[in-house]
Amino acid sequence: MLNKPVAQFRDIAAYSGDWVEVKKGDLIRIIDVEGQQVCDMFAVSSADKSEWLSPAHTRAGTSRLFPKVGQYFYTNRYRPILTMTEDNSPGVHDMLYRACDPFMYKELGVIGYHPNCNENFRKAAEEANWRPPEVPDPVNFFQNTPLNDQGELGIQPALSKAGDSVTLRAEMDLVMVVTACSFDIDFTAAGLPQGMDIVPISGERCTGIRIEVLSVPSTV
Amino acid sequence: MLNKPVAQFRDIAAYSGDWVEVKKGDLIRIIDVEGQQVCDMFAVSSADKSEWLSPAHTRAGTSRLFPKVGQYFYTNRYRPILTMTEDNSPGVHDMLYRACDPFMYKELGVIGYHPNCNENFRKAAEEANWRPPEVPDPVNFFQNTPLNDQGELGIQPALSKAGDSVTLRAEMDLVMVVTACSFDIDFTAAGLPQGMDIVPISGERCTGIRIEVLSVPSTV
Repeated sequence: MLNKPVAQFRDIAAYSGDWVEVKKGDLIRIIDVEGQQVCDMFAVSSADKSEWLSPAHTRAGTSRLFPKVGQYFYTNRYRPILTMTEDNSPGVHDMLYRACDPFMYKELGVIGYHPNCNENFRKAAEEANWRPPEVPDPVNFFQNTPLNDQGELGIQPALSKAGDSVTLRAEMDLVMVVTACSFDIDFTAAGLPQGMDIVPISGERCTGIRIEVLSVPSTV
Repeated sequence: MLNKPVAQFRDIAAYSGDWVEVKKGDLIRIIDVEGQQVCDMFAVSSADKSEWLSPAHTRAGTSRLFPKVGQYFYTNRYRPILTMTEDNSPGVHDMLYRACDPFMYKELGVIGYHPNCNENFRKAAEEANWRPPEVPDPVNFFQNTPLNDQGELGIQPALSKAGDSVTLRAEMDLVMVVTACSFDIDFTAAGLPQGMDIVPISGERCTGIRIEVLSVPSTV
């Protein structure tokens, strides 16, 4: 891993979200502190809050379903916003699922309030003056939802271990919002209404995520 | 195929879009008139124009990447909006790509104006009083963008033949917008800037799409 001073950091508690603002060229490391914790990552241009990271545009721009070291994440204007520069994890991430939200937990039979990435995104993004009309699709780091050759998606616990991380380089000045995913539903025992098996994607309990910003002098 | 009277229809010319409003239970047949023509399909609840068909929610709700007969398309509230009841085509469709837009054609090196599904969607949706803040992700019927076991997406001409169709049942009162996709770029000879090979997904030339609404009496 790159050995650079940490200019700023955020410790994101389980079931919550936070944000950082960084400059073009800065490196952002996203760390799964205790292991097996999925996190949802969103990013928006500081200069124009209507230009944000779009997994759909990234799929088209990279001709890939999932992120890979060396490749860009693209905005909804098909411009590079981040590059994935390092992956110190098993390399299993997702760009197909939405952030979890109240509608989803209701659909899964949860009675009453459940913390969720949708509302945690809104709270953090609002602090950064980012109020998109719809919550954008996230990049779900460490999420293990494997695809089989029939085009079917499974749901499995994350493979990441304590301290695993991904590192991203900002390709423009941007605000990044990260949520430590709140999905802790285990239906493997009871069975889901439609007979699906859903296991807790973040292991036995939801834990935190740490973000470190490594400022890189522009002369280097 | 179901043999029911056609209550209304739209003939959508190449490089354009149109819309229909239907009632819960109505069947909508989308026909590739001349063959190999990709079409982008969008749908919104008539009762609440903030609830629309979302491919991302559909992937989560069906645990599948691509549509299949018998399965729902879900809204951004995780409610069924359409069911795919018949598929009289090779069965190759897409739920991963965005509608083509001016940014994409510019990125691909097109100089000046190029017709696109994004603007054709806006034009048709506006007529139906649907003005979403962002153009929703579409379902791309007949689009042949095969996935390999490395998670890489290819771009190939559509496999559908003249008269091939898909039939959908409305699960709520809804407005459907359909565009005959405008993508006609062939870079196989010249090579793309990044070395990608892109073939015209709608065959040698863009053609039209026909929509037929088959009203089904509610007592049947």
